[in-house]
Amino acid sequence: MQRWKATVSYDGTLFAGYQVQPEGRTVQSEIERSLAKMHKGEDLRISASGRTDAGVHAIGQVCHFDSPLAIAGDRWQKALNALLPSDIRITKVEAVAPDFHARFSAQKKEYHYRLLTCSQPDVFRRHYAYHFPYSLDRGALEEGMRMFLGTHDFTSFSSARSTVEDKIRTIYRFEMDTSTDEILFKVSGSGFLYNMVRIMMGTLLDAGQGRIEPKDIEAMLQEKNRIAAGKTAPPHGLYLYHVTY
Amino acid sequence: MQRWKATVSYDGTLFAGYQVQPEGRTVQSEIERSLAKMHKGEDLRISASGRTDAGVHAIGQVCHFDSPLAIAGDRWQKALNALLPSDIRITKVEAVAPDFHARFSAQKKEYHYRLLTCSQPDVFRRHYAYHFPYSLDRGALEEGMRMFLGTHDFTSFSSARSTVEDKIRTIYRFEMDTSTDEILFKVSGSGFLYNMVRIMMGTLLDAGQGRIEPKDIEAMLQEKNRIAAGKTAPPHGLYLYHVTY
Repeated sequence: MQRWKATVSYDGTLFAGYQVQPEGRTVQSEIERSLAKMHKGEDLRISASGRTDAGVHAIGQVCHFDSPLAIAGDRWQKALNALLPSDIRITKVEAVAPDFHARFSAQKKEYHYRLLTCSQPDVFRRHYAYHFPYSLDRGALEEGMRMFLGTHDFTSFSSARSTVEDKIRTIYRFEMDTSTDEILFKVSGSGFLYNMVRIMMGTLLDAGQGRIEPKDIEAMLQEKNRIAAGKTAPPHGLYLYHVTY
Repeated sequence: MQRWKATVSYDGTLFAGYQVQPEGRTVQSEIERSLAKMHKGEDLRISASGRTDAGVHAIGQVCHFDSPLAIAGDRWQKALNALLPSDIRITKVEAVAPDFHARFSAQKKEYHYRLLTCSQPDVFRRHYAYHFPYSLDRGALEEGMRMFLGTHDFTSFSSARSTVEDKIRTIYRFEMDTSTDEILFKVSGSGFLYNMVRIMMGTLLDAGQGRIEPKDIEAMLQEKNRIAAGKTAPPHGLYLYHVTY
């Protein structure tokens, strides 16, 4: 048995999310189906660094699986990509130690959020960036991002449906790149709760529009109640960019 | 009655092509359906600068229609966009003279072709650029593009199904931009026959790979036979970029 670490990119548009669910097409079920074909129909289970919501994209999702097959990493990649649908691509497969775990060994995660700010929507980016044709105060966005930095209880910034007990997470970096016709937000942290990046983004846009003061975010964190924070930004602007081990 | 010129952008991925056809969803039928809704169900016919094949995209397709409704240009745009599916966007509507014709008044057309040359496919561009992970000789591509410049009979570079009688067209410009991880080809001419840009591109890639000599293109033009030229490049890299009147 060898444990393998696979890096996966997927277009979330046509998926019901990452995890296997009774209904709807998921990334996990597609990968497991391809692995089953490579193992004479035997079911293999894969574990990912975490779930992504329906419509959320991934550039560097990571998962692991165990297999008795003696295949090199680049052969795994080719064989799986030949079996997978075109909206999922394996970008790397590496042999790892038996105690590597895609979720529990993760040290840091980076998410990106793409915001298209021009007045006209772009048909070619309608599934890949959130079209937000409203004026935004850059200083307020920057101050808002700073409010999230550090270690906080993110209960207010996670879905009320979240079942995780420990809601304390650390945000290491939160920046934006305005060099194109989009604003690209980059946030990295020790981990993220269910819907957390999307609620942070929705709240940040409230600050950018002057609906709230950036410093209100501190009080929102202290409330520890989902209703204290802003709206959940739509999934199609969000990308799981990288997981660090 | 007022004649209106509409500039239209569409993602060709989910369309069977531009023109109304017995089966399959087309851009023309979607726009005509939206116009009918604005005219109490009365059927309006629109005319475009030309058809685009299934899967081909448009950034600046142009069409015209006549309407008795007294609405300003920007109101037309908003009203139509509210009725159209999200993969078609009207980017401009202008009042024009009654003798304006989207097809017959066109002076020049510009097409773009996006080629993704990195070794790994990109899930987010799988419908928007042709993934071609093979080495290409830049000098051969440039020489090949030059062979098309000027006025030629393009019979060899049009689908055998083309029914147009006059197959003489003039190419004004054919250039490539290699400033990103894609090669962006830009070609403008007096007009283009059915499949013409795609066959030119397929032939150009043969030259870039050394399968043919760039100067062979001259003999291909002289043959005036579709089988003389190269393959038809796939539609999803192609964009109708601009029509000049």
